[in-house]
Amino acid sequence: MQITLVEHIRNLVTLTDDDEQVLNSFIKRQTVRRKELLLSNGDVSKSLFFVEHGCLRMYYLNNKPAEQITQFALEGWWLTDLFSFMDGSPSDYFIQAIERTTLVSIDRLVYDDLLFRLPQLERYFRIIMQRNLAASQLRAKYLSEMSKEEFYQHFSTNFPEFIQRVPQYMVASYLGLTPEYVSELRKRNS
Amino acid sequence: MQITLVEHIRNLVTLTDDDEQVLNSFIKRQTVRRKELLLSNGDVSKSLFFVEHGCLRMYYLNNKPAEQITQFALEGWWLTDLFSFMDGSPSDYFIQAIERTTLVSIDRLVYDDLLFRLPQLERYFRIIMQRNLAASQLRAKYLSEMSKEEFYQHFSTNFPEFIQRVPQYMVASYLGLTPEYVSELRKRNS
Repeated sequence: MQITLVEHIRNLVTLTDDDEQVLNSFIKRQTVRRKELLLSNGDVSKSLFFVEHGCLRMYYLNNKPAEQITQFALEGWWLTDLFSFMDGSPSDYFIQAIERTTLVSIDRLVYDDLLFRLPQLERYFRIIMQRNLAASQLRAKYLSEMSKEEFYQHFSTNFPEFIQRVPQYMVASYLGLTPEYVSELRKRNS
Repeated sequence: MQITLVEHIRNLVTLTDDDEQVLNSFIKRQTVRRKELLLSNGDVSKSLFFVEHGCLRMYYLNNKPAEQITQFALEGWWLTDLFSFMDGSPSDYFIQAIERTTLVSIDRLVYDDLLFRLPQLERYFRIIMQRNLAASQLRAKYLSEMSKEEFYQHFSTNFPEFIQRVPQYMVASYLGLTPEYVSELRKRNS
């Protein structure tokens, strides 16, 4: 699966060929290797990342210390530590490619200029932020009300492709389960 | 404390007097009594609410069944069940005034029209959604990494006014603590 940023934007707002030229002058497209880090704990989250092909994960080191994954981004998803991106404070997170990934990044120092030059992107990002916020509200509710087993079932029913692509120990970290427990649930359901 | 929606918008984007007239034709301003319900479980979340004066809470009934509060909105905050608001599905939530509250509501059926008529509101809501999403990322991280006592300390240090205004059992519900435990923490810190 693959989706370009331009296609993704055109699903929501109008973008002429001239606009596309302007957009291209503001963004950077790159392909990174599996395991490559795009953000490290202690650095400012300098970019908004859009995944065109591949998969990213965002995680922090909890007290144990173990990797606690808080978000993934497959094709068509944006990812960053938004707080650090907005106010320039050091991030607590790492962002890493978990497959060879082609992505677009927008630097925080040009984000406002880009929105000024292409004001239809205000609408595009309003819709993206709104959808992400709705998803975040929903995820917080599921996490607080479901048992871990229910949450895994819900997740594997709704995002089967995701469960296939992401290593089992990362799914476990994201869902707050041990890898052994996820392995057991998989066997039970197969 | 009090903030009008127009002031709040003008802090972020330009709104002429003519625009204000247009805005007023799309919104509804009302004052509701303490304990009045603005959304009930099973209904569609028909409105985005902006608090000009007072305080709202959003909660659902968990399996126990007890009220699990997921969000509050003091002056200057927007609140709704965004998922239900966006796709028209029945909500699992209740939204209730916990003080006498003056609020502005925007109906989901006119939200897009309003953004079309006043396109600068795309920018306004993009910033609002982005800030809320950043806050939501941060809260999820705190919840997963802090002990309950640390979370309470963090919360009362950063939002002292909030702890004063909101009944103790609601603060407990929001933070995932028992009312008895919050009472004990308060005594320990006083």
